[in-house]
Amino acid sequence: MNPAEAEVAAARKAQRKKEKSKKRKDSAATAEEGAIHEKKQKQRKEEDEGEEQAGPKRKPTVSIAVAGSIIDNAQSLELATLLAGQIARAATVFRIDEVIVFDSSPVVENGGVGDGEESGAMFLVRILEYLETPQYLRRRLFPMHKNLKFVGLLPPLDAPHHLRKHEWSVFREGVTLEGDRSKGTLVDVGLSKNVLVEQILEPGKRVTVAMGTNRDLTTACVRKVVSPSTSTEEMGSYWGYKVRYASNLSGVFKNSPFEEGYDHIIGTSEHGETISSSELTLPSFRHLLIAFGGLAGLEESIEEDTNLKGKRANDVFTYYLNTCPNQGSRTIRTEEALLISLQYFQEPIRRAG
Amino acid sequence: MNPAEAEVAAARKAQRKKEKSKKRKDSAATAEEGAIHEKKQKQRKEEDEGEEQAGPKRKPTVSIAVAGSIIDNAQSLELATLLAGQIARAATVFRIDEVIVFDSSPVVENGGVGDGEESGAMFLVRILEYLETPQYLRRRLFPMHKNLKFVGLLPPLDAPHHLRKHEWSVFREGVTLEGDRSKGTLVDVGLSKNVLVEQILEPGKRVTVAMGTNRDLTTACVRKVVSPSTSTEEMGSYWGYKVRYASNLSGVFKNSPFEEGYDHIIGTSEHGETISSSELTLPSFRHLLIAFGGLAGLEESIEEDTNLKGKRANDVFTYYLNTCPNQGSRTIRTEEALLISLQYFQEPIRRAG
Repeated sequence: MNPAEAEVAAARKAQRKKEKSKKRKDSAATAEEGAIHEKKQKQRKEEDEGEEQAGPKRKPTVSIAVAGSIIDNAQSLELATLLAGQIARAATVFRIDEVIVFDSSPVVENGGVGDGEESGAMFLVRILEYLETPQYLRRRLFPMHKNLKFVGLLPPLDAPHHLRKHEWSVFREGVTLEGDRSKGTLVDVGLSKNVLVEQILEPGKRVTVAMGTNRDLTTACVRKVVSPSTSTEEMGSYWGYKVRYASNLSGVFKNSPFEEGYDHIIGTSEHGETISSSELTLPSFRHLLIAFGGLAGLEESIEEDTNLKGKRANDVFTYYLNTCPNQGSRTIRTEEALLISLQYFQEPIRRAG
Repeated sequence: MNPAEAEVAAARKAQRKKEKSKKRKDSAATAEEGAIHEKKQKQRKEEDEGEEQAGPKRKPTVSIAVAGSIIDNAQSLELATLLAGQIARAATVFRIDEVIVFDSSPVVENGGVGDGEESGAMFLVRILEYLETPQYLRRRLFPMHKNLKFVGLLPPLDAPHHLRKHEWSVFREGVTLEGDRSKGTLVDVGLSKNVLVEQILEPGKRVTVAMGTNRDLTTACVRKVVSPSTSTEEMGSYWGYKVRYASNLSGVFKNSPFEEGYDHIIGTSEHGETISSSELTLPSFRHLLIAFGGLAGLEESIEEDTNLKGKRANDVFTYYLNTCPNQGSRTIRTEEALLISLQYFQEPIRRAG
């Protein structure tokens, strides 16, 4: 190396160091954001548990966990958005109760989308929450954000709780409003008038309102906020998924919103065991979790998780399954694996139920 | 209506008439293009049959038919391209032998993508063919076309016949080249040198070359062109899908590349019968066809097909099945239905085989 070359090399090294330090700061910010998100979720969990005790016996639930890293591999914000839309659609088609997005640990440096400010996992959480929210509540619940730029391209989820203005439904999603709390709380449920509920609730909270069959929209008819699962339990209709952020794979298992945790945890992988769907017998469950890895699979997520040090897939998962043997492509993408595997599990889940 | 309004209305009417006549011309052009495409396919079919007689007994095949109208509903060329990519991926993952894209009949007016010059079905055919072709042959086989503008965004199919330059394989896809025909034909198979095959073939034709295990790439080693299905039959590896255009649904059934036609034709629809995958018994078959409708379903495709006048789904299909009961979304998109249904049919197909 001549002196000129050496100088260039030194400058490059300094530049790399600077970038690395910046990235570290960014990822610290992201980790902090993630921690805040996890804390908020814990709060919500406690609220939900309060509701749970009051409500009737719950139906068995199915949760899916998805690696947020799939977003980091998308080529553009638009493609990342479309990918997130596919995940949301798959969860809805198969009536999934909870979607957990797990981050890479340590948080991936300069995580892909939008200047590395938000990791792929945080991005996916945002889009999933946005899409699950009925259209008429989005403006109130989601402040403008650059990562929502392309959501207009996405096909709607068309879930039963995404009601139009003229549709009557025994339950309706709403958001609590500001104003006089002397008689209860006004809620915007996407109808021509806001409705009154008896509970005193802070404004800006998403709630499920039992609308009943009385179509009187004056405040003379006082309604009630109920647990979001009431519609599913009483009417059997799917009422959307909850979204949860986990900073790594072990966070998926540990911070379950269900007091009793998950009964069985299934991992999906082309390295998993091949059992035909008709021959798979799942024990009965209250809370089932099915995990999907990213580009490098769940093995990679285990390896990079310090809480799972030395563990292998068979230690972590109750079942580790290959749901698509004889695949004609060398790879199955996570968004494809979701539809393929959730269809595979339909019958075993029904039989276990 | 006052006189001014009447004038405006008359002008609008004239404009609409003009547009309609233009559209009619466009759709005539598209229909003609479609007819040429169908004729070419017939030619190819005859060639294939020639090959078929010489080859060993063929494996059972699975074909899928997809409504081209799904492309017309895409919001942009980019989204249409991504959708086509999803269809190609689904076909590859499930080792589909033939993808038939059926147009609307009469050809849909101003069919969506790219100034209405090409119907959604023709567009889908082009992208499917492009993606199925190994990367190293695309430049020779696909002239530049504006509808290929966004193919760079698509994830690769990663099929076994999509080989890299350094990979050796007993079979390899190639394209015949110009030049001296005295000793045979030179073929570009994507290796560092072109190889010589004994057959005298016209240039620019896609062929499958039996490369064997002798890695001699000089013209001293003369190879042979074989039927594309040879690799599947001898090695069991998936070797891509063929693509066929049909001007309407009945064209899917009538112009089968298999002399004996399709043994069973399955239609998928949310109005179909609900049978669980484990309980579905398909009779054994040589050629199975599974059809997927567009936004309005297969019923609509039957209704608009003059050759199927007065027929109902149960008259047209051997089985008419709902492969995803209890769906949590009001709609299942065709690209989702492909993965869901092909997974559903995996076991019944294996049992029938």
